[in-house]
Amino acid sequence: MPRVIVDVMPKPEILDPQGKAVHGALPRLGFSGITDVRQGKRFELEVDAADEATLAEIAKIAETLLSNPVIEDFAVRVEQ
Amino acid sequence: MPRVIVDVMPKPEILDPQGKAVHGALPRLGFSGITDVRQGKRFELEVDAADEATLAEIAKIAETLLSNPVIEDFAVRVEQ
Repeated sequence: MPRVIVDVMPKPEILDPQGKAVHGALPRLGFSGITDVRQGKRFELEVDAADEATLAEIAKIAETLLSNPVIEDFAVRVEQ
Repeated sequence: MPRVIVDVMPKPEILDPQGKAVHGALPRLGFSGITDVRQGKRFELEVDAADEATLAEIAKIAETLLSNPVIEDFAVRVEQ
């Protein structure tokens, strides 16, 4: 069954407190070499068929239900 | 600057109440053709260099800080 991935990330200009918290914890835990961390959401949608109509529908779902377009960007792709 | 993606998803045998809530909302909002939804997290890590040592370090970060290995699987990949 085809799987469609929707990635939802905070827009670049939006502060990301979760990512900042992770980034701030890394040196304390002994990790270095990571210059920035951003945290978002990943949705895996199982669909009957990954045709054009379904992908258009999923883009609408991503915009209205899975993301907040004021502060988040989303990307839809079919998993190989 | 290279970007490394860490995807964290609930293990297949673990209940996913967030994904179930999204899936349950779809028919009420007029969307059909989606047979399952699972929700996880996506981390974008900016690194100085995506070499082998850094990726090994990120795998350790993913295991200890970004995921709960009891209930979640993670995947690390370098974004093209």
